[in-house]
Amino acid sequence: MVDAFGAMNAIGLVAFALAGSLKGADADLDLFGIAVLGMLTALGGGILRDTLVGRVPVALRTTGDVAIALAGVALALVLARLLGSRLRTHAVVQLPDAVGLAAFAATGALVGVRAALSPFGVVVLATLTGVGGGSIADLLLGRVPSVLHEDFYATPAVIGGVAFWLTVRAGVASGRAALGCAVVVLGLRLLALRYDWRLPTI
Amino acid sequence: MVDAFGAMNAIGLVAFALAGSLKGADADLDLFGIAVLGMLTALGGGILRDTLVGRVPVALRTTGDVAIALAGVALALVLARLLGSRLRTHAVVQLPDAVGLAAFAATGALVGVRAALSPFGVVVLATLTGVGGGSIADLLLGRVPSVLHEDFYATPAVIGGVAFWLTVRAGVASGRAALGCAVVVLGLRLLALRYDWRLPTI
Amino acid sequence: MVDAFGAMNAIGLVAFALAGSLKGADADLDLFGIAVLGMLTALGGGILRDTLVGRVPVALRTTGDVAIALAGVALALVLARLLGSRLRTHAVVQLPDAVGLAAFAATGALVGVRAALSPFGVVVLATLTGVGGGSIADLLLGRVPSVLHEDFYATPAVIGGVAFWLTVRAGVASGRAALGCAVVVLGLRLLALRYDWRLPTI
Repeated sequence: MVDAFGAMNAIGLVAFALAGSLKGADADLDLFGIAVLGMLTALGGGILRDTLVGRVPVALRTTGDVAIALAGVALALVLARLLGSRLRTHAVVQLPDAVGLAAFAATGALVGVRAALSPFGVVVLATLTGVGGGSIADLLLGRVPSVLHEDFYATPAVIGGVAFWLTVRAGVASGRAALGCAVVVLGLRLLALRYDWRLPTI
Repeated sequence: MVDAFGAMNAIGLVAFALAGSLKGADADLDLFGIAVLGMLTALGGGILRDTLVGRVPVALRTTGDVAIALAGVALALVLARLLGSRLRTHAVVQLPDAVGLAAFAATGALVGVRAALSPFGVVVLATLTGVGGGSIADLLLGRVPSVLHEDFYATPAVIGGVAFWLTVRAGVASGRAALGCAVVVLGLRLLALRYDWRLPTI
Repeated sequence: MVDAFGAMNAIGLVAFALAGSLKGADADLDLFGIAVLGMLTALGGGILRDTLVGRVPVALRTTGDVAIALAGVALALVLARLLGSRLRTHAVVQLPDAVGLAAFAATGALVGVRAALSPFGVVVLATLTGVGGGSIADLLLGRVPSVLHEDFYATPAVIGGVAFWLTVRAGVASGRAALGCAVVVLGLRLLALRYDWRLPTI
């Protein structure tokens, strides 16, 4: 189970770093800015998560995630030259991105339950870990975070967080519940992409 | 005294959640975005406050404040349908909002003094708890936080923080000083609304 | 060595507070907004640094840095009246600003190594301490942080952080390595200003 998680997490880090770097290249940032955007998109959600529960961020203490995210940035530099930045909305980015959202939401929910947060806190942490990095990147570019006004993107993470909490509440071990959470998030996100789901405005 | 505080805090949470949600609806966010803006406006100041003094945010650990803020979001959805979003600058929002500013500034000052911050730190925490949530919401919408360029809004919180610190310094118990702080903030804010006070630019 | 550091830190605080306040005046903020921008530019990098490693920010616990930054804000109010805001790109601001970048990057690297961060974490903390305050100020004004798309500004801090880590790794005491880091950052930044260095975009 750890392996499935680790693989999903790695896929997500590469996909998030790739998407963030391409976003930076689109916005005419210089190389430093592109790398910052890629790394922040990949690592920012986890950094927010850890800061909120009072841990020094894993991304600043260990090298594994950082190295994987850097690989995503490097990949973006190559792909952007070869293919242009059109690929941001291509399935080759969106599918791994959905995997990353699922893995990150699951780790956020796990960290939240271990920090003895309230149900609301667990759901917030799951969602923030999933969408926080991309939202910080949007903010740095002076944009309204895309999760606030388009797409069915954060909602799968919210529902996954709720599902996680209900499962743990029902007595299931939190590691197993986290895997369930990831499956729920991934399934909902893929359905949303396939059928172009959106939330209503008022 | 606890009761007066609790009531002011609850009024403030509802008012802030209401104002934030309406701001989100004005900006054409989807339902998720509206709820995020409402919750962040109500809870964001306290989350910043707790993170800065190294506590896991109360809003993620307990359910009381969250439930009250959610009620504010729900109220906003109903009112926005009935009345349109004009009510944001209406007294029915601005008066409870002033009560919330006062209650939040007072809790910020209290937390600051208990964390043994410097006088400057206490004033910063009082102000940030009062205006931080709304400022985060403004930032998410790509706007300059309104407290930076208009109105006499943050200034009452700053003055309340200074008054709190002087009172504690003079030997008054911090709970009683916090109530005094709230009265000062509320009074100044109401006067500012009544007489349209503004700070000069240079 | 402590004295050299202290002096560089003080010069940096004044220069950053001055630059931030002038930026605020340019953007037509009111007096409160101008003071917030100045203080945040001077103190924001250190606040981010401390929050990430789980310390209550020094700027909220002690009064020394705060008083120096306030002096920078006051200086800005005087200078802006006398000279207009053209001086932001003048050598009288840019040289002390380079000194501040160097001092702040060095303290960030030191704090990172003491918090047992990874090499990546140390470099991030050095960079963030140097450029974080100005970036927060840019964000509050709704601008893309200037370090992301122009100038060779963050890069000296990154290189200084790497140099620091390599020096400590080679067995040099961290205090001495921090001084070396500051010299590297300052030298690179002055060269960048003199020869108008820029990073490529892709």
